[in-house]
Amino acid sequence: MWPPSGSAKMTKFQTTLRQFPDLPPITGMRLGGASARIWYRGRKDLMLAVFDRSVPVAGVFTRSTTASPAVVWGRSILAGGRARALVVNSGNANAWTGAAGVEAVHHVVRSTADMVRCPVRQVFVSSTGVIGEVLDASKITKALPRLCRQISPNNWKAAAKSIMTTDTFPKGATRSVIVNGRVVTINGIAKGSGMIAPSMATMLAYIFTDARVPSKLLQGMLVTANKKSFNSITVDGDTSTSDTVMAFATGAIPLGFRPIGLMDPRLVEFRVALDSLTRELAQKIVSDGEGASKFISISVRGAASSMAARGIAFSIANSPLVKTAIAGSDPNWGRIIMAIGQAEEKINKDKLVLRIGSFPITEAGGVRADYDEGRVAEYMKGAEIDIDVDVGVGRGRATVWTCDLTHRYIAINADYRS
Amino acid sequence: MWPPSGSAKMTKFQTTLRQFPDLPPITGMRLGGASARIWYRGRKDLMLAVFDRSVPVAGVFTRSTTASPAVVWGRSILAGGRARALVVNSGNANAWTGAAGVEAVHHVVRSTADMVRCPVRQVFVSSTGVIGEVLDASKITKALPRLCRQISPNNWKAAAKSIMTTDTFPKGATRSVIVNGRVVTINGIAKGSGMIAPSMATMLAYIFTDARVPSKLLQGMLVTANKKSFNSITVDGDTSTSDTVMAFATGAIPLGFRPIGLMDPRLVEFRVALDSLTRELAQKIVSDGEGASKFISISVRGAASSMAARGIAFSIANSPLVKTAIAGSDPNWGRIIMAIGQAEEKINKDKLVLRIGSFPITEAGGVRADYDEGRVAEYMKGAEIDIDVDVGVGRGRATVWTCDLTHRYIAINADYRS
Repeated sequence: MWPPSGSAKMTKFQTTLRQFPDLPPITGMRLGGASARIWYRGRKDLMLAVFDRSVPVAGVFTRSTTASPAVVWGRSILAGGRARALVVNSGNANAWTGAAGVEAVHHVVRSTADMVRCPVRQVFVSSTGVIGEVLDASKITKALPRLCRQISPNNWKAAAKSIMTTDTFPKGATRSVIVNGRVVTINGIAKGSGMIAPSMATMLAYIFTDARVPSKLLQGMLVTANKKSFNSITVDGDTSTSDTVMAFATGAIPLGFRPIGLMDPRLVEFRVALDSLTRELAQKIVSDGEGASKFISISVRGAASSMAARGIAFSIANSPLVKTAIAGSDPNWGRIIMAIGQAEEKINKDKLVLRIGSFPITEAGGVRADYDEGRVAEYMKGAEIDIDVDVGVGRGRATVWTCDLTHRYIAINADYRS
Repeated sequence: MWPPSGSAKMTKFQTTLRQFPDLPPITGMRLGGASARIWYRGRKDLMLAVFDRSVPVAGVFTRSTTASPAVVWGRSILAGGRARALVVNSGNANAWTGAAGVEAVHHVVRSTADMVRCPVRQVFVSSTGVIGEVLDASKITKALPRLCRQISPNNWKAAAKSIMTTDTFPKGATRSVIVNGRVVTINGIAKGSGMIAPSMATMLAYIFTDARVPSKLLQGMLVTANKKSFNSITVDGDTSTSDTVMAFATGAIPLGFRPIGLMDPRLVEFRVALDSLTRELAQKIVSDGEGASKFISISVRGAASSMAARGIAFSIANSPLVKTAIAGSDPNWGRIIMAIGQAEEKINKDKLVLRIGSFPITEAGGVRADYDEGRVAEYMKGAEIDIDVDVGVGRGRATVWTCDLTHRYIAINADYRS
């Protein structure tokens, strides 16, 4: 129906992104995935994580004004700062489902709270999938007791699989780092793969650590990490009703000090690891963007501020004309100039330098005399494209990641529900 | 390579949009189109309009910070308020072409001024086509003298053809209206067809009237008309480096009164005609959007302000997920709810009513009990789709027009230059 998405050979980086690494157990929690037949028979569509006791929790949710009742519930109980269980289903977003949708969330939450014996306000839920169809909560509540008996410390891949929608591979990442002489671990799982945009995407990501971190501090670190990862990616510029990023800290490994705040130097390694783990998950989401055949990094430097740099970078990353040119391996750099211009941020035309890969393209407001289109065209055939722009004004910089826009994206989305 | 863009039968409205109407002469001007071999042999790519004497002129240009030197030149001479000639080429946007691009504009302008014997500051130019390649001005200056001998009062279709890029049909519209007992005429020609977004699109539109209207008044009326027409359409959300809308008033028909301002009641019919003509041209652009198989009208009512309504309408109109669902005739209305939500404008979930065609879909924050997906699916197979949203907050309203996102869009843009 369409040509295979380019013959570009996957790079080693991309191949690595598509692998599911071995995630070690996180002491103090168990998890797993099962089929609750929300989607179709045999497909895993229900994930459960249970903590041995209530643990500190942090969360960032979609800014959508049509957020789903699961998001509304999560936001409302986040202030409590404690979690005992997390239930996620795929196959149905339970969004824009009126009073019945709200009741479905409460039903799942009550049933889970009874099962693990905790207050309802310690049960977080997420739903992802089609919008506008009421979730049959009884399918979940029927499947939960059995799943609860099956959960284990080693079920990361099954959990990651059960939250997938149009994702083509499960997404996980892990980091181990030494904090104050103790080895702590951070694991994360995530799903994409369309409706991916800043603030945030149709994406869910759950991060778990055995470090003992209070919820307020965890929240601060999550917000920071989120900005440079999940809020720095885009697939199609669309924001979903269900976007959720959460972090849970089981506390099995006490840090042996009382952190004095987000910037406590003893937390540097932990923060770096969290940033790097969330970036890896975000890049996995982009590399599995709907129909994606190429992984695109866009760096903007020399902008008036980091906000301005982000504005320019996202203008490039969200431009259908840039994304289709890259899909066609066409070094049509003029469209990048167009996208820079439409951001309406301050630039210095004469100083602006656009690079594709290692090739500088522009100087003095025009194309360089030594520009060799053949070499750039050769580079564009690759599966990993770097775009670097110095707009020559100030010191603001930002990097965002995206993918190309292909026939497969249209095929997937023009016929999603059939 | 891709399935034909849907088997949807074109509506009468769409068929009409694709026709080039008979445009009557505008006394005081001549125009025409020719091939200057900028694009390829035999294809018309140069348009010239010459006014018998210098005439009042108005203009609206792209807000892009990487605007082409033709746009920069036009903006700089607009304050003079007079025009004697207009030169437009397709096949090359002459954008991001450094000093050589600026010199190309000056070369064309000087040469035209010599030819028609007028100050250089009365010669307006536009270029549309690929970005980043220096325009060979000598091709234009060589072709101009011959074209200048061929221009006539009746060459509207040839002129409209010569400004086309990926457009599949030339676009023109005309209105005749009685002002203070005198019949005045307004003609317009335009081109699309990708990079179409508010503020504005890769679009050019030129409007000509025989009414005697001072340039300041013409400017005011053009800005108003532009907002409800060319600034209310989107194809892919991209803004180009060349977007230009201009109006010229030859003054052959004196109105017989001195207008007291934009809101002079004696000008009502003229303003209504100008608004309606620009709306028709804008709708022609959308109906010829790259790869478009469907014409989509999106009306938002009940918003906190008209700005808020526009924000919501454009969020729907620019959503790749909404546009692909419509391409696939899929009544996936949940994606419209998603797009409303991501606009981050105030809505009242309980009062919000979404209609597709004449079918109300939602009530009380969920789907209506009587929602009949089969009937909506049948409606979605049509080539003209109306989306109407009342967000239940205030009195702000806006209507925007767009097209669907199809395999053809990808095919056209992944391989534009080859």
